[in-house]
Amino acid sequence: MFDLYIANKNYSSWSLRPWVLMKALNIPFNEHVMPFEGGVGDSHATFTRFSPSGLVPCLVDSDDEVAVWDSLAIVEYLAETYPSVWPEDKAARAWARCASAEMHSGFGALRAECPMNCGVRVGLKELSAGLNNNLARLDTLWQEGLERFGGPFLAGEKLSAVDAFYAPVAFRVQTFNLPLSEASQAYVQRLLAHPAMEEWYQAALAETWREPMHEQDTIKNATLLNDYRAV
Amino acid sequence: MFDLYIANKNYSSWSLRPWVLMKALNIPFNEHVMPFEGGVGDSHATFTRFSPSGLVPCLVDSDDEVAVWDSLAIVEYLAETYPSVWPEDKAARAWARCASAEMHSGFGALRAECPMNCGVRVGLKELSAGLNNNLARLDTLWQEGLERFGGPFLAGEKLSAVDAFYAPVAFRVQTFNLPLSEASQAYVQRLLAHPAMEEWYQAALAETWREPMHEQDTIKNATLLNDYRAV
Repeated sequence: MFDLYIANKNYSSWSLRPWVLMKALNIPFNEHVMPFEGGVGDSHATFTRFSPSGLVPCLVDSDDEVAVWDSLAIVEYLAETYPSVWPEDKAARAWARCASAEMHSGFGALRAECPMNCGVRVGLKELSAGLNNNLARLDTLWQEGLERFGGPFLAGEKLSAVDAFYAPVAFRVQTFNLPLSEASQAYVQRLLAHPAMEEWYQAALAETWREPMHEQDTIKNATLLNDYRAV
Repeated sequence: MFDLYIANKNYSSWSLRPWVLMKALNIPFNEHVMPFEGGVGDSHATFTRFSPSGLVPCLVDSDDEVAVWDSLAIVEYLAETYPSVWPEDKAARAWARCASAEMHSGFGALRAECPMNCGVRVGLKELSAGLNNNLARLDTLWQEGLERFGGPFLAGEKLSAVDAFYAPVAFRVQTFNLPLSEASQAYVQRLLAHPAMEEWYQAALAETWREPMHEQDTIKNATLLNDYRAV
């Protein structure tokens, strides 16, 4: 049986990836939400009880006593048992792995300037050059996938791991009202409308935890417009 | 047939990973060295001729007309044909994927403060808190792998993709004389002594290109002690 340890749904973009993939593919798991404590690093000691790196997400396979502590490694671990994690076509699979890995190590400006905070809407004061570059790359990459493999998802007809890797971007686009091409905005709307994404979003809105650092980070270059979260 | 596009061997840590893995596993490929031009981003236009993201390394499989533009995606692409890319044991393979992915997205201080520059030796003026954290994590992670899977490589008897992912760290430890545990230093020496690493190192020393940004970056918090490169 799988146990998936994740952090707050409102904030934890890394946690969202394996969660939404497993939900979308009907891979059963026990969910354990471990809220962030204080600032960055403060949760480390608690998280090392289940995660070797002290980071989330962490997938524990109790059948094999294996702990898998990185989102991309979780995806590959699942793919060994559930081939539908990646597209069936070899070229589509290679493309999907590249695009996922590019998100895994890149898009630094998008991550730093637009942290995931599902329940709020903010107006960015300005878009940095780095953020504009990241958005242009998203448009290019998504258009390539959607055109080449026929959509409606990035690598073809079904939601696969590459969509899960860009799922946090959909929430960021919604929160920060980020400018993207029409085709990219339509893809964002498709992701947000997926039942697994909708389930995550409702759970994020219901959370009453507030982590000061994430909150400050969200509005450091932006104005708060709306907050839809439970109080 | 595989074509592997890489940048300068002296500088390009990302390029080293698939190169050293393919050499160590005797996977045949044509090598294309594309030196960096000017500063960061200046090579982008040239690199997009063979790499969809404008980044290296990029593996082109001419049999299937597939371009794979990320080091971790290259490793997984190769693993579909060459299972020895990852350890045979399931738990060792999961661990190796986690450790590789952790390097792929993490160790920011180590990367920023100790850029790969194979041919020089420098003395760091001070070790930042972030760098010390990264080195402590390396010690923990490497010790775990070496003890759990029996060594001499991180996930067992044979060099696998996880060693390739930490190969650039071995050059960084050598260049910056970084403090690590005795067991970690012995592992670094084993990596440096591997014939594929030795071949890369000799080719790096023979390069006469100098890229000003990488050179400045190397000594921004350090004193140049030795330069073994050809002039």
